[in-house]
Amino acid sequence: MSDPTKLVFVGAGGHASVLYDIVTEQNYIVQAICTKPSGLISHVFKKIPLVKDRLDPVEFDPDNYKLVNCIGHMPFSTARFDVWNEYKNLGYVFETIISPRSSVSDFAYLDEGVQVMTNATINSNAKIGANTIVNTGAIIEHDVKVGSSCHIAPGAILCGSVSIADGSFIGAGATIIQGVNLQQDTIVAAGSIVTKDS
Amino acid sequence: MSDPTKLVFVGAGGHASVLYDIVTEQNYIVQAICTKPSGLISHVFKKIPLVKDRLDPVEFDPDNYKLVNCIGHMPFSTARFDVWNEYKNLGYVFETIISPRSSVSDFAYLDEGVQVMTNATINSNAKIGANTIVNTGAIIEHDVKVGSSCHIAPGAILCGSVSIADGSFIGAGATIIQGVNLQQDTIVAAGSIVTKDS
Amino acid sequence: MSDPTKLVFVGAGGHASVLYDIVTEQNYIVQAICTKPSGLISHVFKKIPLVKDRLDPVEFDPDNYKLVNCIGHMPFSTARFDVWNEYKNLGYVFETIISPRSSVSDFAYLDEGVQVMTNATINSNAKIGANTIVNTGAIIEHDVKVGSSCHIAPGAILCGSVSIADGSFIGAGATIIQGVNLQQDTIVAAGSIVTKDS
Repeated sequence: MSDPTKLVFVGAGGHASVLYDIVTEQNYIVQAICTKPSGLISHVFKKIPLVKDRLDPVEFDPDNYKLVNCIGHMPFSTARFDVWNEYKNLGYVFETIISPRSSVSDFAYLDEGVQVMTNATINSNAKIGANTIVNTGAIIEHDVKVGSSCHIAPGAILCGSVSIADGSFIGAGATIIQGVNLQQDTIVAAGSIVTKDS
Repeated sequence: MSDPTKLVFVGAGGHASVLYDIVTEQNYIVQAICTKPSGLISHVFKKIPLVKDRLDPVEFDPDNYKLVNCIGHMPFSTARFDVWNEYKNLGYVFETIISPRSSVSDFAYLDEGVQVMTNATINSNAKIGANTIVNTGAIIEHDVKVGSSCHIAPGAILCGSVSIADGSFIGAGATIIQGVNLQQDTIVAAGSIVTKDS
Repeated sequence: MSDPTKLVFVGAGGHASVLYDIVTEQNYIVQAICTKPSGLISHVFKKIPLVKDRLDPVEFDPDNYKLVNCIGHMPFSTARFDVWNEYKNLGYVFETIISPRSSVSDFAYLDEGVQVMTNATINSNAKIGANTIVNTGAIIEHDVKVGSSCHIAPGAILCGSVSIADGSFIGAGATIIQGVNLQQDTIVAAGSIVTKDS
């Protein structure tokens, strides 16, 4: 087996703890966690060194460390998107994280830094944009297009050929029926049934 | 390992591409795809020979090839059912397709040509009729009976002892509570909560 | 492999049949089923000896047999809770049952007798109380707390940091958004979207 990929987590709260679960089953090693002094720190991280505020690209060379954006994505918050921009500007690459207990089609396309959580399904010919979360148990059917920096929350269902533009939030348990197109920055409340374009 | 089962797909659109994903992980080989000249053709099929309009039982002997009904099932469309009838009359058998990442009880009963997609669950003592789709992430609880040529769309939930008669469509993310009986050709909209018999 | 754990099922209906499916894939052996003469008996149990009414702790020594509470949990019924109390008073231990096709975080905490059914997910730092069912395909996100003797019905979704007190019933396909707290004995109807504390 090749050397494990060295990761640095940015963020240390609940979403981070789920990602930690997922990467520690695979050939990764989490070298450090970067977190604001004010941020939540899940107790699952007590054995991992903390880096305060921001990474130093000299200490953590972008050629040797890949990042994981561990900030959750909630409506009306840009925190996750800000982390992405800040570290892309410093030359870092965000690792694409796929739970070994998710199901991603060989004919699906995941861009940089996509996170596919446990029991999620991504079917044939789906395209998922950079920095997007496909959360626990979410269903992405065939021919769906999801833009960058979206959050498909736990248990949400995107039927065939749905298209969702950048920055959108699809709440937990929401259902988007086939062929619906949602504009940039659309927010769909948890449990909603969406039958028309936004 | 025994020789792979030789399949011919009837239909080449989105549902076909998901089925293709599922069969290519298993001991199957897709020999040809039969499609109307007007039909959608998913680009995942570019390396597989196309057969136009209908199969010739001389070229594709029903004793050597099993069919997969790859036409999706939408409300008010009989296209999927028509394919079933047309090829059953020619003597073909439809293969039952079970995603290796679904969960089907040893005590469940699947009739000819049932399709169980990824992350679906079919629990103990459930019975699923011929030509029915149990789509991605759908949940079929214990003692459920689903008739023939039904579509249980992605993420739909049929609680224990539900009974659904032939030709019905249960939309994505719908929930049918325990013990409900739905008549033939019932259509349940996406996300509906069904608490009474139809 | 060590000797299989010897189980006695209490209850023989639909929920029992699903549990039977789950334990027979693992290193368990179901030695007997205890059921009221009036109770439903799933036909999957026809080869297993029936014990009527209640177990005799002389014949089934609590040191040698672990119990599985196979009574389903429906709103307004105490039957499942009564079984728990009756046999705990006799000195029995209830086995925690985890479907091999569920996903339970190494950082989650399950108390005695929890039942995690197929395709359910329990994420990091979740705590599940004794005698609770996390049913088929349910999603328990990070930092969720579920009390004892609850039922999270099939496909229900508990978002991050939800807290649900003892004896509650969360209906099939219900969604509880992040951070909501539900009091003891709360009943959430199937498919509900809960956005406020009870």
